Amino acid sequence: MAASQQSSFDQPIYTDAVVDILGAFAYGELSAFWRVCEDASMAPSLWDQMEMSRLAVVEFSKVTLLSERLSDFGVEPSDAMAPFRAPFEKFHSLTKPSDWWEGLVKVYVGDGIARDFYREIANHLDPKTREVVAAATADAGHAAYAVQAIRLGTSLDPTLGGRLALWGRRLMGEALAQAQHVVADRETLADLLTSGTIVGLDLAAMTSIFANITEQHVLRMQALGLDH
Amino acid sequence: MAASQQSSFDQPIYTDAVVDILGAFAYGELSAFWRVCEDASMAPSLWDQMEMSRLAVVEFSKVTLLSERLSDFGVEPSDAMAPFRAPFEKFHSLTKPSDWWEGLVKVYVGDGIARDFYREIANHLDPKTREVVAAATADAGHAAYAVQAIRLGTSLDPTLGGRLALWGRRLMGEALAQAQHVVADRETLADLLTSGTIVGLDLAAMTSIFANITEQHVLRMQALGLDH
Repeated sequence: MAASQQSSFDQPIYTDAVVDILGAFAYGELSAFWRVCEDASMAPSLWDQMEMSRLAVVEFSKVTLLSERLSDFGVEPSDAMAPFRAPFEKFHSLTKPSDWWEGLVKVYVGDGIARDFYREIANHLDPKTREVVAAATADAGHAAYAVQAIRLGTSLDPTLGGRLALWGRRLMGEALAQAQHVVADRETLADLLTSGTIVGLDLAAMTSIFANITEQHVLRMQALGLDH
Repeated sequence: MAASQQSSFDQPIYTDAVVDILGAFAYGELSAFWRVCEDASMAPSLWDQMEMSRLAVVEFSKVTLLSERLSDFGVEPSDAMAPFRAPFEKFHSLTKPSDWWEGLVKVYVGDGIARDFYREIANHLDPKTREVVAAATADAGHAAYAVQAIRLGTSLDPTLGGRLALWGRRLMGEALAQAQHVVADRETLADLLTSGTIVGLDLAAMTSIFANITEQHVLRMQALGLDH
């Protein structure tokens, strides 16, 4: 298994697929950077605006890491990201936060889904890419700040929790829908993720990855006290 | 002179004034971070959007540096920044770029003015603050990228140069107007900057600082090829 993986990492189809994965991850973080920056303006205080800005900057540091790895593969990072612009912008236009609280839940939930997904996929990638993805999915402190702020907010406003619980489910649904569009549109990516021929990932493995992500999402909503 | 400066650094009026200076600088960079982030969406390509985003992140790194120094003085950084929110937001609302090029000139010119101003002021501050301001005013690569992009743009569109030259003058005018409002509103700051009793700065020194900044601004506009 290890030997067959080793050789599969040299195939052009592997390179195409890993460039897609890194490009999607990088564009996702770049678009998150812009949105979190924008959402910071809705924060109730300058202190919270700074915290949100700090989270945005962490998203950008991931873009930098992933771009460096894309350059290793001889690809201009913005070229690798371009194909993923439409689905991510679609996701963001469908999940535009209507207030500070929805923005905060989106940062926490969106960051969590992305981290779970890429960490699981990375187990099947070449060692150097795995290392880069591990660094880009390290806990960036989103959790502590968001959980504390949202728990405070829902304790002060009893109607907020129900609304944010619905919002969390909608975010997860839209994320899954856009992920499906991406895979359907990108042939080598679909092949890598489901055929079992490239890096030991097949449809059964993908199903289990999505089951894990859904489970982690439920745990995150519980951490926010939004498991209604 | 050195001995009298040393003792003046211990006076409460010095602390009040230096906290104002650091707070103004930090809020200016924080607001620049948000605006550059926003302006990045107008960039003609994903590559340029990434470059602009990188510049935004550099602005935020300065907020972090200055906040740490504010904490040394026992002040919550967001409290020190709050008084400067109104004048900076006013500046930004009066100088909202109508397109990518105006945004780019604003980043380059605004960053240059801020760097010149705080670097000059820092010569009169305590050694540790001087060091922090030096780090926060180091060249962050704004120049190289902006100059190259604007020179390319004006070479392709002969009407662009004249429009951007006017825009550059307007930016400088609005920056000076808001700076004057700030000084008029903040008594200890005005005292520090003009009375000569605190750190050797008096009205003559301030006049010379503003003359230098204006001169540097002219040189920057020349570097952009916008010295019409």
